[in-house]
Amino acid sequence: MDYILSERVKTLKPSAIREIFKYAADPSVVSLSAGNPAPEAFPTKAIAEISAKIFEEEPVAALQYGLTEGYPPLKKAVWDFMQNKYGVGGENDDIIITSGAQQVMDLFTKTVCNEGDTVICEAPSFIGSLNSFRSYNCRLCGIPMEKDGMNIEALEKALQQEKNVRFIYIIANFQNPSGATTSWEKRKAIYELAKRYQVMILEDNPYGELRISGENVPCIKSLDTEGLVVYAGTFSKILSPGMRVGYAIAPKPVLQKMVVCKQGEDVHSNQWAQMIAYRFMTEYDFEGHLNSLREIYRKKAAFCMKLLDEYLVPGGISYDPIEGGLFIWCHLPEGARISMNEFCKQAVLNKVCVVPGNAFLTNEAEQCSSFRINFSTPTDEQLEKGIRILGQLAKEVL
Amino acid sequence: MDYILSERVKTLKPSAIREIFKYAADPSVVSLSAGNPAPEAFPTKAIAEISAKIFEEEPVAALQYGLTEGYPPLKKAVWDFMQNKYGVGGENDDIIITSGAQQVMDLFTKTVCNEGDTVICEAPSFIGSLNSFRSYNCRLCGIPMEKDGMNIEALEKALQQEKNVRFIYIIANFQNPSGATTSWEKRKAIYELAKRYQVMILEDNPYGELRISGENVPCIKSLDTEGLVVYAGTFSKILSPGMRVGYAIAPKPVLQKMVVCKQGEDVHSNQWAQMIAYRFMTEYDFEGHLNSLREIYRKKAAFCMKLLDEYLVPGGISYDPIEGGLFIWCHLPEGARISMNEFCKQAVLNKVCVVPGNAFLTNEAEQCSSFRINFSTPTDEQLEKGIRILGQLAKEVL
Repeated sequence: MDYILSERVKTLKPSAIREIFKYAADPSVVSLSAGNPAPEAFPTKAIAEISAKIFEEEPVAALQYGLTEGYPPLKKAVWDFMQNKYGVGGENDDIIITSGAQQVMDLFTKTVCNEGDTVICEAPSFIGSLNSFRSYNCRLCGIPMEKDGMNIEALEKALQQEKNVRFIYIIANFQNPSGATTSWEKRKAIYELAKRYQVMILEDNPYGELRISGENVPCIKSLDTEGLVVYAGTFSKILSPGMRVGYAIAPKPVLQKMVVCKQGEDVHSNQWAQMIAYRFMTEYDFEGHLNSLREIYRKKAAFCMKLLDEYLVPGGISYDPIEGGLFIWCHLPEGARISMNEFCKQAVLNKVCVVPGNAFLTNEAEQCSSFRINFSTPTDEQLEKGIRILGQLAKEVL
Repeated sequence: MDYILSERVKTLKPSAIREIFKYAADPSVVSLSAGNPAPEAFPTKAIAEISAKIFEEEPVAALQYGLTEGYPPLKKAVWDFMQNKYGVGGENDDIIITSGAQQVMDLFTKTVCNEGDTVICEAPSFIGSLNSFRSYNCRLCGIPMEKDGMNIEALEKALQQEKNVRFIYIIANFQNPSGATTSWEKRKAIYELAKRYQVMILEDNPYGELRISGENVPCIKSLDTEGLVVYAGTFSKILSPGMRVGYAIAPKPVLQKMVVCKQGEDVHSNQWAQMIAYRFMTEYDFEGHLNSLREIYRKKAAFCMKLLDEYLVPGGISYDPIEGGLFIWCHLPEGARISMNEFCKQAVLNKVCVVPGNAFLTNEAEQCSSFRINFSTPTDEQLEKGIRILGQLAKEVL
């Protein structure tokens, strides 16, 4: 059979990170390439307790079909939390529970983009989202990231010049992969530009609760008087990614179509996981848990940055200090003798995996001298070993 | 904001059934309109036990990120089961675990259909799948259903005349909504036509294990020497729909693209649910459980058909006897004084919900004198009450 594939999937490839994971699966390789929460960050005891209670008290509710929009008590709990804590969600908005925040990217793109329409993204940005946009044959337009967010001039120029721009995709807190947090001034500027050019904003905030230093910056969605912003949230980094529970808070006309798309995609999200998330938020000390997570990641990030100072910086590799999230963005020096891609390959040969920065670009063929390391998944021992090896390599080959 | 929606979602509506569910939510209304498994069909005790064991033995595996392709032990268990029991899955095939079989419809359509391509469906057919195809702007071409499956002449004519046919969608066992089972002769004829015209087949088999009488008919996929068939299976009707665990067994070149699409859609399916399904299949008496389900539905179906004979047939309404599944397809007599749609509205006013048959057509505006009733969700008392009311109504208005 000569299989006929749709135009949209013909050029779609598994993410470059997945290729790297193949090496990372080798137990002798230290993987700094993942994005998994630290295993010690899971409240396993609480989840086991809740699960037992659910099967004692309401097993059929956990096993029967649910509503496409999501488990109503969880919808309300998340809505109240986001409303009270962050001012997210107005009277023209509604909420949908999704199978992870990844599904928000998918449903929103499906709802507003025709093939060939343009999505403006930070460059670099999260591969999973870029691939979701690509899977609807969207054109990606990357705006260079600076330490305080997108370059606003480049964003305005893109809004002026690009055709059929449907939305601006932004991870405003501790961005993946750059670690950058968009400043309050830039958040306001981006919202004003969206308003002026009448394009929507997809604000993806998976790491917002993982701030380890500095002051919280309000969400763009909290500015949204015009109904321009779709906010994507998730339990993946604060409870469990394996449960696949995320959500969108979005203007009703858009959200209603996302619900219809979700109906055709997976009917509804896993019912048990929604009930776990609901009870964990309302019957346990949710804020206390978030504090304990921040404590775990504060220590791990500080340890990682200390190692980078000790081993990588003397070898000529710089990095951008972070205030939260799970990733640190490292840079080869100007005039390095080998390319970043070559450096990452050499690292694998020396049994350390990092992610080459060009994997995160809208055009992977572009030059890039940065790579991403993750500090949440490895143990302290692995982190120390991996960064020490990278440091030795830097001294030898750069 | 003047929201710009994609062409594909502009005409997409929530399924007609959902509108009916609004009435069905009224506790004074007897709902014969759902498609939920009977609550007593859930092995709640076993699932509670397995869940407790998972949290005792391997909590992190249940909570951490998983693989897009699915939990490897479950993939193997399902593969072996389908291979050994039904001869499904050859050396050029592979398996992906999905978020319910609904996601198979979505991922496969996304992989092989450009907007405007044609999907050939049984008419009537399952609304959820039709809406999934519609959400990619596919053209639907309905082939009239007969008691033993699609009209083969009409199918061949469609294959000759329609442009860009990508696949034939078929529910061969106890079809939703017609209850019809495609005969072995027709299965072979459909496969031969697919081969001759080089189009694929999407074989959706949610009810296959729910045979209550007659002999099993082999799956079309078991004939698939040419790599033409994508087989969609699910745990929704045999374990739990709320868990959202389905799967596809499909030719590798197609399956690989479906995996990439799934990565962008929800990364992977709920990990806990996959582990539950795996342990239930391998550590419990899975075949014994399937037998007990068949026993439950055998009794319920027989009771329902007895009620139909007693109350509806005398009022002029006929039905197609079934050998399995969850639905019975009923027909208003020729020359009825009111339309089927009017009859269903009157039924709601009399506090009984059924699904008007035109909801299942590729063109909902077409004439249809049939409606669907479900016997798995209501209790025996509800079933008796509902069908008695329908019978009284039939006598009064037809």
